[in-house]
Amino acid sequence: MFRLRAAELEVSRISVPGAYITLVLVTLHDLDTPALLIDLDIMERNLARVADYAHQHQLRLRPHTKTHKIPALGQRQLALGAVGLTVAKVSEAEVMLAAASPDLLIAYPTFGAAKLARVMEVARHTRVTMSLDSLDVARPLSAAAQAAGLTIGVLAEFDAGMGRVGVDGGEPLLALVQGLEQLPGITFEGLAFYPGQIKMMDQEGAAELRRVSERVAAAIGTLARHGIACPVVSAGSTPTWMHTHEVTGVNEMRPGTYIFNDRNTVNSGACGWQDCAASILTTVVSTARPHQMILDGGSKTFSSDRLANSSEVTFGKLVEEPAALFHKMNEEHGFVDLTHATRQFRVGERVRVIPNHVCVAMNLHEQVYGMRGETVESVWQVAGRGKLQ
Amino acid sequence: MFRLRAAELEVSRISVPGAYITLVLVTLHDLDTPALLIDLDIMERNLARVADYAHQHQLRLRPHTKTHKIPALGQRQLALGAVGLTVAKVSEAEVMLAAASPDLLIAYPTFGAAKLARVMEVARHTRVTMSLDSLDVARPLSAAAQAAGLTIGVLAEFDAGMGRVGVDGGEPLLALVQGLEQLPGITFEGLAFYPGQIKMMDQEGAAELRRVSERVAAAIGTLARHGIACPVVSAGSTPTWMHTHEVTGVNEMRPGTYIFNDRNTVNSGACGWQDCAASILTTVVSTARPHQMILDGGSKTFSSDRLANSSEVTFGKLVEEPAALFHKMNEEHGFVDLTHATRQFRVGERVRVIPNHVCVAMNLHEQVYGMRGETVESVWQVAGRGKLQ
Repeated sequence: MFRLRAAELEVSRISVPGAYITLVLVTLHDLDTPALLIDLDIMERNLARVADYAHQHQLRLRPHTKTHKIPALGQRQLALGAVGLTVAKVSEAEVMLAAASPDLLIAYPTFGAAKLARVMEVARHTRVTMSLDSLDVARPLSAAAQAAGLTIGVLAEFDAGMGRVGVDGGEPLLALVQGLEQLPGITFEGLAFYPGQIKMMDQEGAAELRRVSERVAAAIGTLARHGIACPVVSAGSTPTWMHTHEVTGVNEMRPGTYIFNDRNTVNSGACGWQDCAASILTTVVSTARPHQMILDGGSKTFSSDRLANSSEVTFGKLVEEPAALFHKMNEEHGFVDLTHATRQFRVGERVRVIPNHVCVAMNLHEQVYGMRGETVESVWQVAGRGKLQ
Repeated sequence: MFRLRAAELEVSRISVPGAYITLVLVTLHDLDTPALLIDLDIMERNLARVADYAHQHQLRLRPHTKTHKIPALGQRQLALGAVGLTVAKVSEAEVMLAAASPDLLIAYPTFGAAKLARVMEVARHTRVTMSLDSLDVARPLSAAAQAAGLTIGVLAEFDAGMGRVGVDGGEPLLALVQGLEQLPGITFEGLAFYPGQIKMMDQEGAAELRRVSERVAAAIGTLARHGIACPVVSAGSTPTWMHTHEVTGVNEMRPGTYIFNDRNTVNSGACGWQDCAASILTTVVSTARPHQMILDGGSKTFSSDRLANSSEVTFGKLVEEPAALFHKMNEEHGFVDLTHATRQFRVGERVRVIPNHVCVAMNLHEQVYGMRGETVESVWQVAGRGKLQ
């Protein structure tokens, strides 16, 4: 009568009265709080949207897995056409080996003998690329690769306006790349940058996008004039993902947050609330103060990240009451101002909250729940959480 | 020649050339970054200072273990005279059972059948007390305790001005306590409050301390007029710990942060920099932008907590260069402005940072290192990290 994909269902109880088998599914109501929920239909739509875009514009897609930190979801991204996966640290690369990616990009200047030994161990299992912005980082990498008899791909990181890592795209970039080309054990594969400064939601966004495009073209041009080709030109950032094809010369994108989206993504204009796959289920634990309720999740559950590019001090959107103001948190307490709410809440009621920044929230949860409607379809260990080194 | 407490030393290599045994100690320089370091001499001084104060003023000391989350340190607090330990969630209570405390105070209104079953399991091993502020929380607790054949101690939480959890100290407190006294399976043991709103560093602090004292006296008085005694009156907060004896009627303190202290504690005036036991060792990974360096730790390493009670947007103090400004972070990047620095830094250099808020930083580290000078004397698993429920 019913066809069940049993491997994907969490069953809390099986009873066999007479000839019938009753499977009791685990639902939203069985979960203790706080719990991080992933709406699988929304997640699949988000994954397909960006995969289709990359395919349409012939862009390499190398999703940043720091958002989900779950090998099974990395595999899903590969199945949808990603050419490889991106990680932030070697510890994340070790975890993401389980996704059997043909390529792992460590998008971070990785320094120190202990980390480099681990990079080489990862590189014995799959192809490894690293982005970096100095010969101080490249030289020990080169030495370690040579000693291990391995070749590591390298992307030179330049600053397209973010002002974080990355050399200036003129002479300093040329000097870096010429230095990289002298080093054994590594192969220069192209350029990387992170355009996190672009705010598409304000009028300045389009202008900054044009400036980034000019900087990228100039960087590629500088190298070309010295006979250096850039097979890969890799850009990051979810808020700008649908503008990637507008940036001259870019042929690779590595968005992360797009798999779930969050309040920051909505605020950036890159998605709507209906595209937010992740929410955190909480319980009201106190209503003792007038016009206020306390949720059983604070900075240990959501992180204390404020809304990006906003002066607003709020920590999430309550699905059940958008007029409620989640304005303050301690480690275990979420303070919600109900002054403008259209309804009241009782102790013990459950409320879902869309977090400001889902990547750092994922990092705080040991496991998360893949939901099909109210049914728990998957329980995922967040294997890459808490990986600092 | 040397007497070694071998159980407390981490040894990286033992070689036996001829008749000599060479023990190579693990030092600061062997640790990969980012790493959270605890200066054991400072920690012991901090522990002794508060234990001595509690003893001198005949105050019960029930330290909040949410700061360290390590059973061995809970044991140390008990050895110095603590009457019990405080935790924030039942999951932390489960972890802290390993400290063999005669008493665990769950200082949080704990709701839901799953959590209550776990509370009862903890209560089979040690005495459990819970602070709460509603009969909606107390009734299911009472039912669960009665069903389990156990008795749980209860502290009624009232609001001494913080505006978080806690009922008003007048009629609502009386109604709560009278309700508690009717419930089987639980025993009313007294009052709890958290005076987190007191800012001793400004002139308002002393006035607010007096107001808190008046509110506490009024709450105790209201209950006394109805023949209700409060064997325990329990106050929290590290910034105000040395003022606990000034608050009328309080006979118990449950500070947490005092074991390590942090930038918030210094800012509150409750300690100096020389009392900060915890720092985070990081590596400079990029100096590509002028007057800036990037550290290999951001919000995943420090948390994104800003300095409390300050409009300053900074995330820690650099031990090696106090004039450097740690003004921005992403998940893996710490942005340090060196405009006013007296020295420059190279890629690969290591820098220690005193975090704004050590409790949330501890929650992000799987293990931390107890240091005696530059030697690693203890490696502790942070057993209570990431406990959300």
